[in-house]
Amino acid sequence: MKLYGYFRSSAAYRVRIALNLKGIKVEQIGVHLVKEGGRQHEPAFLARNPQGLVPALELDDGTILTQSLAIIEYLESLHPEPRLIPADPVLAAKARAVALAIACDIHPLNNLRVLDYLKDPLGRAQGDVDRWYRHWILQGGLEAVETMIDGGSFCFGDAPTIADLCLIPQVFNARRYKIDLSHLPKIEAVDRQCKALPAFLAAHPLQQPDAEV
Amino acid sequence: MKLYGYFRSSAAYRVRIALNLKGIKVEQIGVHLVKEGGRQHEPAFLARNPQGLVPALELDDGTILTQSLAIIEYLESLHPEPRLIPADPVLAAKARAVALAIACDIHPLNNLRVLDYLKDPLGRAQGDVDRWYRHWILQGGLEAVETMIDGGSFCFGDAPTIADLCLIPQVFNARRYKIDLSHLPKIEAVDRQCKALPAFLAAHPLQQPDAEV
Repeated sequence: MKLYGYFRSSAAYRVRIALNLKGIKVEQIGVHLVKEGGRQHEPAFLARNPQGLVPALELDDGTILTQSLAIIEYLESLHPEPRLIPADPVLAAKARAVALAIACDIHPLNNLRVLDYLKDPLGRAQGDVDRWYRHWILQGGLEAVETMIDGGSFCFGDAPTIADLCLIPQVFNARRYKIDLSHLPKIEAVDRQCKALPAFLAAHPLQQPDAEV
Repeated sequence: MKLYGYFRSSAAYRVRIALNLKGIKVEQIGVHLVKEGGRQHEPAFLARNPQGLVPALELDDGTILTQSLAIIEYLESLHPEPRLIPADPVLAAKARAVALAIACDIHPLNNLRVLDYLKDPLGRAQGDVDRWYRHWILQGGLEAVETMIDGGSFCFGDAPTIADLCLIPQVFNARRYKIDLSHLPKIEAVDRQCKALPAFLAAHPLQQPDAEV
């Protein structure tokens, strides 16, 4: 399988963690989201994913799957162990809800294409863009997630779930923008625990073949 | 079970369709998202959903589930028939990808809280807000979904899936904003077919107990 991604894409980062936890090897292909106006907009990539977003997972028969959470559910059905979706339906719903709170209500608002739109055509200055980023990452975002998770070593229970796969990349983004998370102690504890695990370490943006400092 | 929703919320609309297709009866409780600054921000509702968003599904034991797609997956695991997630893993991934393309990459950008933020503090006029709405619904949104679905009677195959549950409410929003979709014939055909079905008809915003004209 081939994973089309970008080292800093937090959606690709989620899929990398899932692949590592399940021990699935893929060929990684970097799609540079910034260079030359963004290679995700080139016809060759749009033919793979008409949304012009990463990640995209190309199966060995050429089938292409998109949307990080759909890819993770696919990997879960093909390689059920270790489970990333809890077996208990209520716990599964809670883990998926945290994943979706991040994947729907934080990440798309702070995606590159949206920040670009705020600058042009909306003509907002960098200060407004930074406030926008901070606002959506915290309010109704990670501040809500803090109350949704059990906390401890992981968001729920004693092993990583799809919730942790979404949380750790989002915390990485928050730290990159120097957003203080010290009022979110459960999230900080989960982040400390998860990011020390080999599957998370190997998925880190700066460990990717296309990484730039 | 109790469903906290709002007649016009397209996320609540998705869950209503799922409940109707599966023949599950719930008590509906309207949370007015506009009146008095939005009742989703009141402490009584935030105690149910710290994100301050609808829908939220309260189970008979008081457990509360949030995020429409997590709720639909929960309903699917408890009441597997009729299936809303295809049994085939690749088809399941494609149906979930369409659902997520809408639930992550269109809907949150056009949510009430975001349109409000564009006006205050960003100071954008209604014309900019309308262009924003139209931009995200089409570009990388429904225009991509048009190429992701098989089309015919439904997005995939001969029965509704989670993809149709997300598509029909999003098309409702597009039409409410008078956005021309005539260049998206597969989406228009699916919309025509689905919205004639009793489960979709009964889930329509104007059929809800809290509907306002």
